[in-house]
Order: sequence, then structure tokens, then C-alpha cells
Amino acid sequence: MSRLDLSTDVVSLTAALCDLESVSGNEQALADAVEEALTALPHLSVTRDGNTVIARTDLGRPERVVLAGHLDTVPLTTPPNLPTRREGDELVGRGTVDMKGGVAVQLRIAAAVAEPSRDVTFVFYDCEEVESERNGLARVGRNRPELLEADFAVLLEPTDGGIEGGCKGTIRVEVTARGKAAHSARPWNGVNAIHGAHAILGRLTAYEAQTVEVDGLAYHEALNAVGIRGGIAGNVIPDECVVVVNYRFAPSMTSAEAEEHLRELFEGYDVRVTDAADGARPGMQLPAAKAFVDALAVPVTAKEGWTDVARFSALDIPAVNFGPGDPNLAHHDDERVPVQQLVDAEAALLRWLA
Amino acid sequence: MSRLDLSTDVVSLTAALCDLESVSGNEQALADAVEEALTALPHLSVTRDGNTVIARTDLGRPERVVLAGHLDTVPLTTPPNLPTRREGDELVGRGTVDMKGGVAVQLRIAAAVAEPSRDVTFVFYDCEEVESERNGLARVGRNRPELLEADFAVLLEPTDGGIEGGCKGTIRVEVTARGKAAHSARPWNGVNAIHGAHAILGRLTAYEAQTVEVDGLAYHEALNAVGIRGGIAGNVIPDECVVVVNYRFAPSMTSAEAEEHLRELFEGYDVRVTDAADGARPGMQLPAAKAFVDALAVPVTAKEGWTDVARFSALDIPAVNFGPGDPNLAHHDDERVPVQQLVDAEAALLRWLA
Repeated sequence: MSRLDLSTDVVSLTAALCDLESVSGNEQALADAVEEALTALPHLSVTRDGNTVIARTDLGRPERVVLAGHLDTVPLTTPPNLPTRREGDELVGRGTVDMKGGVAVQLRIAAAVAEPSRDVTFVFYDCEEVESERNGLARVGRNRPELLEADFAVLLEPTDGGIEGGCKGTIRVEVTARGKAAHSARPWNGVNAIHGAHAILGRLTAYEAQTVEVDGLAYHEALNAVGIRGGIAGNVIPDECVVVVNYRFAPSMTSAEAEEHLRELFEGYDVRVTDAADGARPGMQLPAAKAFVDALAVPVTAKEGWTDVARFSALDIPAVNFGPGDPNLAHHDDERVPVQQLVDAEAALLRWLA
Repeated sequence: MSRLDLSTDVVSLTAALCDLESVSGNEQALADAVEEALTALPHLSVTRDGNTVIARTDLGRPERVVLAGHLDTVPLTTPPNLPTRREGDELVGRGTVDMKGGVAVQLRIAAAVAEPSRDVTFVFYDCEEVESERNGLARVGRNRPELLEADFAVLLEPTDGGIEGGCKGTIRVEVTARGKAAHSARPWNGVNAIHGAHAILGRLTAYEAQTVEVDGLAYHEALNAVGIRGGIAGNVIPDECVVVVNYRFAPSMTSAEAEEHLRELFEGYDVRVTDAADGARPGMQLPAAKAFVDALAVPVTAKEGWTDVARFSALDIPAVNFGPGDPNLAHHDDERVPVQQLVDAEAALLRWLA
């Protein structure tokens, strides 16, 4: 069994975590190592749920906060972008950004701060990078919500070292143009559904995305075709063309309102919802969030991408994203993190919790 | 082995041919039956090439003509649209239109006219409804072109009982819009290729298709998207969108000129040719064609769809389409032919050859 040395520096610990490959579904070895390392710390009580590990202080503090991160990564590249390697001031390899840098910071805090200023629940969960039904945080929230109870949560997803509040919601719909099949040598006998989709793409390209302020943070909505398909055969006028549209909306809007907005926008076409998830309001005006922001003293912006903060939000726990690494490099073949961001993130959380 | 009775009426013979299922690749039983029936006729010399059967008179006439038709059909429906059945004045079932009605007329003429007014080559070939490389007529043209030598050819594909001269050419190209991938929550980091395809569809929908007169017949060009595809994942701005375009052009244009036309039309985009076939000029001014038109005395129009007349044209043999059945019903689940068209087609060819 692999051993994790939590007394090493955060950069070495990040590398050790990354080198213990844990593509979604294959987290067991890493979860075992995390569980073992945390169980050795007398100030924490540790619970295991599948490949999710939860460790809690229990000091009777008036406030409890969660530090959460996922153990899994997206698949490696071919040839594999592991083991990690150092390139100048950066650590390179799968997981360095998304999000074993954040996990290393969690583990360092867990080991270093035996008497934190508020009680802390550390959550290390599995299967974040795959379908929602497999998500370890969601599973614990369903089955053992008492383990997650808290006044405030920090998700250590990469934010380039800033605080990103809340997150946008997301909805996907299929917008379908219909026509009538005919031989392509005699198109006047049919109606071309792909040509019909021209107007759908026209509404998309003409759409003026709004910037919406929620709890003092500015969210940029985004409306995009993320897929398109149509055509029966090379000599047939197509009778159907489906445009898959993804709408990312500010957390002041519910997913039901987002659906209504899309139905109005694509009036005249079939609109079918394939999936939807509410966003999370940043709640930056709440005392626990204010204390966090004051202690860290780093920039605060809106989170554009949907993250598991929305799962905390659904449990009525205000949550923010804060972690090392550029989120634009998440899932990239060339994933890499500036080591200074790892060091800074650890120091920032120490300012808050020590 | 199935026996064909060529002395029966053309409607019964059509039904018998259809009921001998011969979906492309499964023509052997039908080809055997046709070969046996023709071999029994002393005025014909019969050649077999795979599942293609060729029967020729050899009377030393100054002119030789081809009557050609394919033995195969597209697949049956589920449940099968065979055996054929009579509904009022129509014969219903797979192959009634495309094109065992025409094959029945060929066989009736072959049996009934021992001393035709010009030498006749009857061609019954396989695999017309599938990829061009498998086409029996093309195979014989490559390997034994002397068997096809003639002054004029009639392809008995369905024309609703009129004469349809020549055929349009066809070319398919893939027109590609390119973009840059990004997370769909932060589209400003990328370029949406599907949105980029809006302009491609715009050029298609704005295109004014011309009507072009060739050798006295009017061909309607047609420019259509027949396929579209794009998208990487539901949360990714797509970096590529491919529109498959089919251009049907008058036979006064070569496929090389058609390609040039499309490259100009889609300037600024990648244009890749996937397949192209020249059309066939109708050649209605040629003496053999004039004699055919005069004898039949039926309407003469341009053939819109590409047919194997272009293969005769490529061998420098002028060719027309003439056969029973509405071409718009070809391949339809509800394929059906008015029996009067079968009777009329046989009578028309008898006026020419008897």
C-alpha cells in the first residue's frame, strides 16, 4: 500500500498524489492512502464511504466549515502524462490542476492544524469527473447528509488562487428543425431540415449574452451550440436536424426559468431538455463567507463553470471555490500548475484556520 | 429453381419477378431464372458475367441498341413489402417501380420480338442500389466493353412512362467550419465552429438554383446540405462543424467545373470532395434518339436524378431513361405501379422494335 507523508511540502505532496493514478472509478488505492494518513492523526475522526473519505475535528467550535475536493481525474493521455515532472516553476502532469493540488492543500491543513479556529470537515470524494449519479459527494449528501452539515464550504477546485463565488447553472436542450425527406436530385419534393436549422443557428449567433450581478458578483451567461446532427444519406434531403444547445445561466435564475427562456428563444421548434442543474448563489454577504474573504485577502470573482458548490448550495450550505491552478488547463493534455500557487493556497487557508 | 414464364402478360411477369426477392447482393436466383428463360430463346445468344445476364440478337442490322435494367432492389420493409399484391389498378410491393416493371418489359420484348428492327442487346445487371464499385453494368463496361457496344441505349428505370433524356451530374463535398475548443461555461476562450457554420447554411439557403437547357431539355440544378455534424461533448465549444453538401448539376457542366463552382461558393472554408460523377447529355438531336422519340410518341423531359445512363454516356453511347412507374415512389415503403404503365411501356417499345 502506498503511504502519504503529510509532513512533506505541499508541492512534493501534490506530486505524490498525482503519481498515484486515480482516473474515475480507480480511486481505491488513493482513497486507502488518504484514509490511512488521516487515521494516523489523533485530532480527526475518519469515516469511509465507498471511495470517499471524510475526516472531522470535533472541538465544539461555534462554526463548522467544509474543505472538499475530489480524488479522481480524467483519463491520462497517450503516452501517459504521468508521472509528474517539474518544469521550471511548474509541476506538470495529470491532476496537477484538477485537482490534486487542492487535495494536497487539504491534507496539509488537516495534518498541520490540530486546533483550527472553527471545526473543519475534510471531504475527499470519488467520481466527480463522470456522470452525476456516480458522484461521491452527491452520494454522501443523499445517504449521510449529517456528515456534511456545516455553516460554510470551500471546494478546492482550481481558481488560479482567487476566490470564485457560487457557480452558474447549466441546461442542455435539443432544438429540432423538421423537414420532409426527398431525393436530393428533386429537392422540390421535400423540405430540407438542415437548411431549416439555419434559423436556429441564426438565433444563437444573434443572442446577446447578459452579464448578471448576483450577491455582488458578475456572472456571464453563455448560450452555445455544443452539437449538431442531421442527414439520412448522401442523396436524401434530410427530414430532421438537431442542434444541441448548452445554456449557462446566472444563479439568480432557476433551471426551470432557464428552460422557459430557451423555449421562448426557440419558439417554433421542438425543444427537449436533456439535462439541467441549478447554479449556486455566492452568498458573499453571509458572515461565514465574509470571514473567509477577509482572512484570505485574495481577489473575489464569480465562478463561471458549474461545480459541486451547487451540491452544497442545494443542502443550504453557502459555498465558494478556492484552489490552486488555472481552470482553463483542467483536462488539458498539458495540465500544469505554478508551484507558487500551491504554496500560496496553503498559506491562505492557514491564515483563516490556524 | 424458379422458372419465369415469358409468355404471360407483363403485369403477371412483373409480380413474378418481384416475388423472387433480390436485394442487392442476393441476385443469384433471379439471375439464374432470367438466364434460363433467355437461353431457351433461339434468337438470342446469352452471356453470364457474375449475376449479370446479357442477351443479344445478331441479325446484322445497321444499328444496335441496348435495353438495360438492374435486377436488384433496395431492402424490404419490416414487415416485408412482398409478396406483391394487387390494389385496384396498381401492383404494390418492393421492386414494382424500381425496377422490375422495367425488367418485365425487357423480358417480354426479348421473348416476343425474334426479328427486331435493329439489333438489340438486353442487359440485366446486379448491384445498382449499392456502392458504385459493385455495379454490374460498370463491371461489364470495364471488363467486356465489347458486349455493350451500341448506337443507342435505353435504361428502363422508372420515368412515369415518359422519355427522360440524359441525367444531371452529382458531386458531394464536405464544407468545414473550424473553431477553437473551450469550456462551454467560458466560451470567450474559444470559437464556436457550429456557430461558424451558420454562414455556410446561409450561403446554401440563399443560393438561387438555375435551370439549364441542354440539347433542348431543361435541367434544374439543386444544391443541398444532406448531412451536418459537429460537437465534442455537452460542455465543450466545438472546434469543427462539417456540412455535407450535394450539388446536382446540368450535364453541360463537368464534375470538375462543379467542384470549382462549389469552391468559389464556399470560399473561406475547407472544401473536400468525397465523390463526384459526371451527368449525361441527352443527345436528343442524334438520329438514333430521334427515331426512338418518334416511334414512342410520349413526352420527353430531362432526367433529374443521376442514373446509369451516365455509364453509357461515358462509353460514348447516347442513352435515355424510359420505364414504367413514378420515380418519386422508388425506394418508398409503399412502392406501387399503375398496371396500365406496364402495358403501355411494352406497347411503346414494340412500336419501336417490332
